[in-house]
Amino acid sequence: MAPILLNAVENEHSDYIKQQVQVKNPYLGSMEEDILYHFSLSTKTHNLPEMFGDIKFVCVGGSPNRMKAFAQFMHQELKLPGNPKDIRDICEGTDRYCMYKVGPVLSISHGMGVPSISIMLHELIKLLHHAQCHDVVLFRLGTSGGVGLAPGTVVITDKAVDYAFLPQFEQIVLGKVITRSTELDEGVANELLLYSSEIQNLPAVIGNTMCTHDFYEGQGRLDGALCSFSHEEKLEYLRKAYEAGVRNIEMESTVFAAMCRVCGLKAAVVCVTLLNRFDGDQITSPHDVLVEYQERPQVLVSHFIKKRLGLIV
Amino acid sequence: MAPILLNAVENEHSDYIKQQVQVKNPYLGSMEEDILYHFSLSTKTHNLPEMFGDIKFVCVGGSPNRMKAFAQFMHQELKLPGNPKDIRDICEGTDRYCMYKVGPVLSISHGMGVPSISIMLHELIKLLHHAQCHDVVLFRLGTSGGVGLAPGTVVITDKAVDYAFLPQFEQIVLGKVITRSTELDEGVANELLLYSSEIQNLPAVIGNTMCTHDFYEGQGRLDGALCSFSHEEKLEYLRKAYEAGVRNIEMESTVFAAMCRVCGLKAAVVCVTLLNRFDGDQITSPHDVLVEYQERPQVLVSHFIKKRLGLIV
Repeated sequence: MAPILLNAVENEHSDYIKQQVQVKNPYLGSMEEDILYHFSLSTKTHNLPEMFGDIKFVCVGGSPNRMKAFAQFMHQELKLPGNPKDIRDICEGTDRYCMYKVGPVLSISHGMGVPSISIMLHELIKLLHHAQCHDVVLFRLGTSGGVGLAPGTVVITDKAVDYAFLPQFEQIVLGKVITRSTELDEGVANELLLYSSEIQNLPAVIGNTMCTHDFYEGQGRLDGALCSFSHEEKLEYLRKAYEAGVRNIEMESTVFAAMCRVCGLKAAVVCVTLLNRFDGDQITSPHDVLVEYQERPQVLVSHFIKKRLGLIV
Repeated sequence: MAPILLNAVENEHSDYIKQQVQVKNPYLGSMEEDILYHFSLSTKTHNLPEMFGDIKFVCVGGSPNRMKAFAQFMHQELKLPGNPKDIRDICEGTDRYCMYKVGPVLSISHGMGVPSISIMLHELIKLLHHAQCHDVVLFRLGTSGGVGLAPGTVVITDKAVDYAFLPQFEQIVLGKVITRSTELDEGVANELLLYSSEIQNLPAVIGNTMCTHDFYEGQGRLDGALCSFSHEEKLEYLRKAYEAGVRNIEMESTVFAAMCRVCGLKAAVVCVTLLNRFDGDQITSPHDVLVEYQERPQVLVSHFIKKRLGLIV
């Protein structure tokens, strides 16, 4: 179904598309109940349209504490009533993920790696569908290793690429490998880059993000329990990545981009780099420096949300 | 280096091997400091031999709450002094994993999926190496979908297999795919099966475990946000899996088996099945039934540990 263009009455963006979140599963409609097991929510026990129908922005990130902190930060930024400290984990019935709602913003943790975020995305997309949400933008806010960038730089992902620097995600379906595109929304990325220039102390670039399935051997680290390559071979791989436009490495972007794309969701990946991988493998910056770095994607996405809501002109 | 067989003075098992935990990385020895970033531990800030030198059993599982509960359970089972409720998360400086030590037993959470457990295993194996641990046995205690088994059955893994039912794990190293064997320790598996018969209400089998990289499409579920196959195609895939000896499906066993094997660690995978996938996809059993199922691998591994420690004859 082609998206329907409406006059954007809620905001000034004429390209804003009134589009309901789509699932790509013909069986869901006929299920009497849908248990979102890893969220500890269900269509029978929870009124999902009432709980989530007004969601416009979904922000996901690996760490539960960070996503709670982001929710509290958004609560302040949106000047919502009540104490930010009182926000409640909607998924308190499980410890797989945490989820907080602040106004039109949903903040969810997804753990580390493609499989972990993929479970969350399946259940999130079903949740948004059941709740009849529309015009939703998704952001992944993360940390990453930088490739040729100063630590603390925020990378807004152009293409999410695999270990061979290709913009694709290989999904196994019933024992067969299928390939999905990992293209992200160019408009949202450009908008984020523009806003980064309006914020002090927020160096940002648009670049490709390489998504790997491990933190050590797959990313060319010399400090894992297993290492079978030389320092020079590592640098050569990183150089090739750089030449292919890769500016940072993380572990979730390809499946995030692929699933959002299939379901017609506008999405962006915004990760800060914690180190420059040309200079080393271990994350040695002091704790307070790392904490400030990790706030940068939050500040940028918060700025985007406030712009979209008309709270900043 | 060949393992050294010693007279087993601490227990009756003549095949008990006095073997230090091996890392396979020539660079580690020359590092001035090793920061185990995702544990929030380091060789400079923590005395790892003093903290962990006596560890003989490492039990890992996805859920932080479950691994805390297991540690408290082991505290009681080993009749250790103090209140089990007072055990402290050794990784409290981070929310990526949690870790509890009770006597010679370490209980750690690893999140969901191969990448998440792989980060934990790299840092765990380095930790055990730095701490000069020897004769360590590792267990993964998990939940899974059953293939042709009644819910609640415990599957002790014979071979961990991939989506094509092959006992191998594909690891990407600097952009190249290498294949590792996923053979587990036969002796430990047989010992676990034997002990299961000594425990009431603990149905157990030895079978192959299929490890997938997602919970929905890769496992043939019809209830994800994306589904492109029919009910009959799903059943055909599960039937083929059953014919290949697969009795359960989870998301971590291949990399767990592969990494333990490369590092010379004896390892076993013990997962309870929460449903029979031939009958459905959603986990619909009541909460208290699921809680009791999830305790079964814990009871079995606790029995194994007490046998090994001579607390049960």
